[in-house]
Amino acid sequence: MKTDSKLPNFSHLLPANGSWRQDVTAWLQEDVPAFDFGGFVVGSDRKTGHLFCKQRGILSGVPFAQEVFDQCELQVEWFFQEGQLLDPSQANGKLLVARVVGGARNVLLAERTALNLLSRCSGIATASHDIITSAREAGYTGLIAGTRKTTPGLRRLEKYSMLVGGCDMHRYDLSSMVMLKDNHIWSTGSITGAVKDARSVCGFSVKIEVECQSEEEADEAIAAGADVIMLDNFFGPQLKSAALSLKQKWAGKKQFLLECSGGLRISNLADYLCDSIDIYSTSSIHQGVSAIDFSLKLQRHE
Amino acid sequence: MKTDSKLPNFSHLLPANGSWRQDVTAWLQEDVPAFDFGGFVVGSDRKTGHLFCKQRGILSGVPFAQEVFDQCELQVEWFFQEGQLLDPSQANGKLLVARVVGGARNVLLAERTALNLLSRCSGIATASHDIITSAREAGYTGLIAGTRKTTPGLRRLEKYSMLVGGCDMHRYDLSSMVMLKDNHIWSTGSITGAVKDARSVCGFSVKIEVECQSEEEADEAIAAGADVIMLDNFFGPQLKSAALSLKQKWAGKKQFLLECSGGLRISNLADYLCDSIDIYSTSSIHQGVSAIDFSLKLQRHE
Amino acid sequence: MKTDSKLPNFSHLLPANGSWRQDVTAWLQEDVPAFDFGGFVVGSDRKTGHLFCKQRGILSGVPFAQEVFDQCELQVEWFFQEGQLLDPSQANGKLLVARVVGGARNVLLAERTALNLLSRCSGIATASHDIITSAREAGYTGLIAGTRKTTPGLRRLEKYSMLVGGCDMHRYDLSSMVMLKDNHIWSTGSITGAVKDARSVCGFSVKIEVECQSEEEADEAIAAGADVIMLDNFFGPQLKSAALSLKQKWAGKKQFLLECSGGLRISNLADYLCDSIDIYSTSSIHQGVSAIDFSLKLQRHE
Amino acid sequence: MKTDSKLPNFSHLLPANGSWRQDVTAWLQEDVPAFDFGGFVVGSDRKTGHLFCKQRGILSGVPFAQEVFDQCELQVEWFFQEGQLLDPSQANGKLLVARVVGGARNVLLAERTALNLLSRCSGIATASHDIITSAREAGYTGLIAGTRKTTPGLRRLEKYSMLVGGCDMHRYDLSSMVMLKDNHIWSTGSITGAVKDARSVCGFSVKIEVECQSEEEADEAIAAGADVIMLDNFFGPQLKSAALSLKQKWAGKKQFLLECSGGLRISNLADYLCDSIDIYSTSSIHQGVSAIDFSLKLQRHE
Amino acid sequence: MKTDSKLPNFSHLLPANGSWRQDVTAWLQEDVPAFDFGGFVVGSDRKTGHLFCKQRGILSGVPFAQEVFDQCELQVEWFFQEGQLLDPSQANGKLLVARVVGGARNVLLAERTALNLLSRCSGIATASHDIITSAREAGYTGLIAGTRKTTPGLRRLEKYSMLVGGCDMHRYDLSSMVMLKDNHIWSTGSITGAVKDARSVCGFSVKIEVECQSEEEADEAIAAGADVIMLDNFFGPQLKSAALSLKQKWAGKKQFLLECSGGLRISNLADYLCDSIDIYSTSSIHQGVSAIDFSLKLQRHE
Amino acid sequence: MKTDSKLPNFSHLLPANGSWRQDVTAWLQEDVPAFDFGGFVVGSDRKTGHLFCKQRGILSGVPFAQEVFDQCELQVEWFFQEGQLLDPSQANGKLLVARVVGGARNVLLAERTALNLLSRCSGIATASHDIITSAREAGYTGLIAGTRKTTPGLRRLEKYSMLVGGCDMHRYDLSSMVMLKDNHIWSTGSITGAVKDARSVCGFSVKIEVECQSEEEADEAIAAGADVIMLDNFFGPQLKSAALSLKQKWAGKKQFLLECSGGLRISNLADYLCDSIDIYSTSSIHQGVSAIDFSLKLQRHE
Repeated sequence: MKTDSKLPNFSHLLPANGSWRQDVTAWLQEDVPAFDFGGFVVGSDRKTGHLFCKQRGILSGVPFAQEVFDQCELQVEWFFQEGQLLDPSQANGKLLVARVVGGARNVLLAERTALNLLSRCSGIATASHDIITSAREAGYTGLIAGTRKTTPGLRRLEKYSMLVGGCDMHRYDLSSMVMLKDNHIWSTGSITGAVKDARSVCGFSVKIEVECQSEEEADEAIAAGADVIMLDNFFGPQLKSAALSLKQKWAGKKQFLLECSGGLRISNLADYLCDSIDIYSTSSIHQGVSAIDFSLKLQRHE
Repeated sequence: MKTDSKLPNFSHLLPANGSWRQDVTAWLQEDVPAFDFGGFVVGSDRKTGHLFCKQRGILSGVPFAQEVFDQCELQVEWFFQEGQLLDPSQANGKLLVARVVGGARNVLLAERTALNLLSRCSGIATASHDIITSAREAGYTGLIAGTRKTTPGLRRLEKYSMLVGGCDMHRYDLSSMVMLKDNHIWSTGSITGAVKDARSVCGFSVKIEVECQSEEEADEAIAAGADVIMLDNFFGPQLKSAALSLKQKWAGKKQFLLECSGGLRISNLADYLCDSIDIYSTSSIHQGVSAIDFSLKLQRHE
Repeated sequence: MKTDSKLPNFSHLLPANGSWRQDVTAWLQEDVPAFDFGGFVVGSDRKTGHLFCKQRGILSGVPFAQEVFDQCELQVEWFFQEGQLLDPSQANGKLLVARVVGGARNVLLAERTALNLLSRCSGIATASHDIITSAREAGYTGLIAGTRKTTPGLRRLEKYSMLVGGCDMHRYDLSSMVMLKDNHIWSTGSITGAVKDARSVCGFSVKIEVECQSEEEADEAIAAGADVIMLDNFFGPQLKSAALSLKQKWAGKKQFLLECSGGLRISNLADYLCDSIDIYSTSSIHQGVSAIDFSLKLQRHE
Repeated sequence: MKTDSKLPNFSHLLPANGSWRQDVTAWLQEDVPAFDFGGFVVGSDRKTGHLFCKQRGILSGVPFAQEVFDQCELQVEWFFQEGQLLDPSQANGKLLVARVVGGARNVLLAERTALNLLSRCSGIATASHDIITSAREAGYTGLIAGTRKTTPGLRRLEKYSMLVGGCDMHRYDLSSMVMLKDNHIWSTGSITGAVKDARSVCGFSVKIEVECQSEEEADEAIAAGADVIMLDNFFGPQLKSAALSLKQKWAGKKQFLLECSGGLRISNLADYLCDSIDIYSTSSIHQGVSAIDFSLKLQRHE
Repeated sequence: MKTDSKLPNFSHLLPANGSWRQDVTAWLQEDVPAFDFGGFVVGSDRKTGHLFCKQRGILSGVPFAQEVFDQCELQVEWFFQEGQLLDPSQANGKLLVARVVGGARNVLLAERTALNLLSRCSGIATASHDIITSAREAGYTGLIAGTRKTTPGLRRLEKYSMLVGGCDMHRYDLSSMVMLKDNHIWSTGSITGAVKDARSVCGFSVKIEVECQSEEEADEAIAAGADVIMLDNFFGPQLKSAALSLKQKWAGKKQFLLECSGGLRISNLADYLCDSIDIYSTSSIHQGVSAIDFSLKLQRHE
Repeated sequence: MKTDSKLPNFSHLLPANGSWRQDVTAWLQEDVPAFDFGGFVVGSDRKTGHLFCKQRGILSGVPFAQEVFDQCELQVEWFFQEGQLLDPSQANGKLLVARVVGGARNVLLAERTALNLLSRCSGIATASHDIITSAREAGYTGLIAGTRKTTPGLRRLEKYSMLVGGCDMHRYDLSSMVMLKDNHIWSTGSITGAVKDARSVCGFSVKIEVECQSEEEADEAIAAGADVIMLDNFFGPQLKSAALSLKQKWAGKKQFLLECSGGLRISNLADYLCDSIDIYSTSSIHQGVSAIDFSLKLQRHE
């Protein structure tokens, strides 16, 4: 394998006995509710399959694809590492990513699910990698994060792929970091009240973020103990000056992070990036992104 | 509701007691593994939420969103019908699609999952609608179909959205129509043998499709009783002449359908469409398509 | 093993990672909701069990029984092959079908579930084998198929056993081949309308069958593109003449299959069989059929 | 309803929130893994269905069928009671058992599963009723019981139907009454040892039965505290004299029940029945019994 | 291992393929709904963990902890046996109970769930062992049993630990031994009626216990065929004389067991114990008992 | 109801459609794997049950018990509110907490599971309430928190009850706040490295806690950006001086919380409490705590 020693082992994020393995089981079974007629025809002679990538991208989804192959009783050898850049243009357009060996019907059963996973994961990792690379090139040192606009049932897979691509996954779900919006504030009468109510149950171990419409609201939220402030409906110079003002005003008094949400895309980074904002969140790195093209080809003769 | 009497009731495809309802349950629970801190803060005062569409598209996913709202004990009134074209440009960019009423914490719990479903379903329905509309405008009367490159766990939702958009869903899974490729043929020695083996188990009620590399192979497959012939690696004029030749040669002898797979996109229809091909299949109508932008806004005062 | 090289490997119909394995888990657990008191008494000394067949029949259910033994951590050696005829009369009434080795409590745990599966599967395969053999002896070359009157929860197992016995499994479920009956036709106004509505959603990959009360209805259904015509309430000579008439009338124009449903049993084949009918369907090959008698005997001394 | 006040309400055996309801859900879903094409064609106009019985038998399975209808959102009115004898011969061969009202696609979805359940349950109840009635007519006042040779996944349903038919369900599973056979005895060295080991874990609340090959073994088992003695391989006069001898010998000393297992059928009751045997167990009342013929017919006009 | 040959192998009560293994899976997954961040940091270098007991108690829960380790792909060596007394006071307060080897992140994943199981099981086994030991020292030879006041979801684990500690588990659930209380009796009009109704469905294989308020009620219950009589609201001398009276009165006529329920604790055994009572039941051996202190320490250097 | 307007509605923490409802279903089914014989005897006549508390404590578990009653189709009226102090000593030892109405067999089915839940939840809430009340009386204004030593399968219920009692639930699981211990630090070489690795995946939305053995380690952790510092193996005056020193040293530079873990119990608060410690964590508020005694009594006459 052409390993890249700077890449961490992302698969260690997935617990040995996690429910993600059962997700893989369900995804495989979605494809064969009754009988596998094609599997009957092809039988279980030992075959080798070549898994190719045909499009530039960041490889992601390896532990999920590996689990598909494991559950189908196949042996796999990977030639690239989770998080590496795949560049098929240097291999006549077809880069050999892995070799899969086992019964013919097993390979054909695993094929579609494994490819569907790799192509989606790698699509998200690639979009994440591309935007953070552009931001770094523009001199930004903060975070770009995804959102909760993930595909139902695939949040783990998609948040994971954002991480592989170099972005932040943002809060995982409603039980993670508390996000207080205008509705929460109305119902308690004030930002201070909403933060207090939230803290009374989420406790010391969970962060609280407050969505603010003005610098005054941000001040109240910071004073109330919010960990993250989201500046909502702030654009361009106004965003940058408000962010700077807040950071300076509270320096040495309260620690907090500033988030800017919405609108950011790889094509408009320059309009948004500024040093006083700690996190930009955007669904453009995971929702509706292009799938990366992978294929699996059985070899005729062993 | 501005109903369109020509639109069928697509929700009747989903059985009253189907496992799709359990999928919705799982998707909702993915968002709250432990506690709903925000729900605690906001409480259960009765609130109204407005569900807006902010982007042109075909509305799809209504029965899934409805199930989300039902499971969160909310009442919903829809102002548009599954399959209708939504055009927010005629409503200042924000088209009111539905009104949701119930406890504040219930609305906020349902919000993200419902929007995630609608935006993905409508994205697929829109891409499907746009390609079939272009094909019809080009005079093509056959089918454009999706593929099995669907998102793991969401096949039902995505195949459904292809139908809502006016395309064909193609075979649902490995237990539906049998697809015989070169691997299947090698293992039995001939196309004839592979079709016979498949028929011996799939029986009279399941169709058999054979992927053919040449007109000779297609002839053998048709003679062997294949229901659908996929012409693989045929392009442009060669595709069109092979298709015509096969149709003429077997007229009155054998009934079969011709499929052309791969490469077709809305941008290159003219290179592919011809009357002798019954079905064009393409993942471009469901994989990596843009999500349609929906949002839900709680009203401050009842 | 006395293998029969003409028998296919039916177990290849069951996918490597299918939900049928989880069914086996549930069936085993049905037998021990709390504790295995007998297992505690008998302990886990290594024992050998002999699995006998005591009644003539077609062996079926081997992959399911194998899975029971696998899940109970037992080794099994089979002496006969799925689909073979077992004839205990040539072995003093007790034919050794398999040898099972493992912990005593494991064998006793697996015993009842494995036998319950084999006896039911083999019962269906035997009834299926007997009726198709009789039909072949009477010169009939078409299909005899089962129905959807299968035991709730066991459809896969029962459809599978029909195949092992040599019959056709007929449509698997409501998502497979569409069956249009009078109710469907009333609701759309005509056979033509019902076929069109069905085709608009089931697409090109799923067959449509229409239940017809008269030759006129059959003509309409064939013209509308139905793939299979079921002649309902046709008997004896009327059935045979209608079938022949339809086949001749449409020869070279439309391809379709004719099915005759209901009433057929092994005892009345002569009243029904005719060459123009492609499929006879009957629940008599799977519903209420006798179980084949199997037993498992632990050997006292290893 | 033609109620029979002597019949108990068997449905009270099934808990309000039992897993049997989830079984019904799974059975319904087995029939529609993807889409309900026929349901789409027929739509949801309100229809009435008539549920007929076409064969003499004891009605059983009503709570399971009711649950099917409930889950499909249908209203049902039953005209007969669980456990009643249905005699279609007095109604021109078609007895109206229930009326089902609701959306056309709902009725058609529920139909097959409900009928499959009623026909199997009623088959078992009928066989159970017939054998116990014959035994009572022959003057026998003891119990006839089923076995653990039930259909995998359907034990609750089948044990329940034995009760409805008037038989005993015998031990439910391996966690209920402990059954000690020769294997258990070998492993501990003696009947006395096996009973002691079993009692040490099953405790005072679970009965112990011992399979005995001779009167001496029965004596040892009774002395050891076995609650039930199964006389194995005892036939005709020998069975009857051994049973009488044991009952007389231990009168006033130990309380125990005598069971005779195997071979008993409705056709050979006379060879087996005697007053000293408390229980005869036989799988002939539930395994491979004929299904009772039920059908459901939608009414064309409301 | 310091084995104690008099201890039975309690793990044989848990079937090879029981749902208890799935419980273990669910318990592990409860701890990692999304990602294992700590596992990512620590990686999968091979490590050894020492599992210590730091408090006197009876070891229980080994098969459950073993399953946790198995599912996390760890090797374990146990130095003590299920049911043995652990006495850390003889090992400087830290007794090495087991050695666990495997990937660092695997050990840390398994740690908390395994310890949580061992500490609860051993707490129940210890309380059970202590009370039965005290009772034996006081000369009592009957049973002390637990109750159905078990922790929801953990009944199997808790009943099992009572057995390991030397107590009786009492009836497992509502489907085991029938318990008739005043409500059941009111609804049928008499104890005799209630016993008859219960027997008509539970059959010969399930015991019936009746809760009695007076000796007269006990007489009626015994005459009606109750297997166990619970004397309710009987204390001290009245309890002992009623028990003796019943035993003498019915000697040689009916066999039955006498149970005394409620109030008994290890601190008041003397007030309750008498030879005529066969079973004392008490939730004090499993509800709210102290957990035994176990810990797991990773060794820094291999 | 004697409501206490200062008490929040804790049930709002549990989402409308959460998996906690499915837990309740599973707990109910644990009690009836097969048949409800007692339910058959008692029937479904409408009855009223009185739910009493017989021991001083904080009421907790109402939403879980309510769900049990809902699933058993019972109506309930509660006379006390989640979180209120129940004092039966002022009601002759039996305080009426709720009235339950419905079918007799439904009440008896719900009884044991509902009581088992209330008694465990209230036990934890009571222990939590008592320790925080004592701490407040001693002038401590910080948090007392639980641990992850919760009962497998019941974490949600137990963390919830800590909140009801007034304590902090501490981190919910391994996917919530990251906890770095010596193992994590060894594997990366330094505290700084471990915090950096953790942050690279947990991102900005999840807190990081570091277990420190010395003030130097704490300084490194704080500098590295840890959100919470756990002082391990610090006692009495040393604990207090280290805490004070850290707080003073970093004032205005870094924000962090100090946690002291282990050893704290209600009986030794004075040895531990000091103002510089923000959180004391202890399993003594939830592990092995006494259950509160509740009972349910059916009324004989309606």
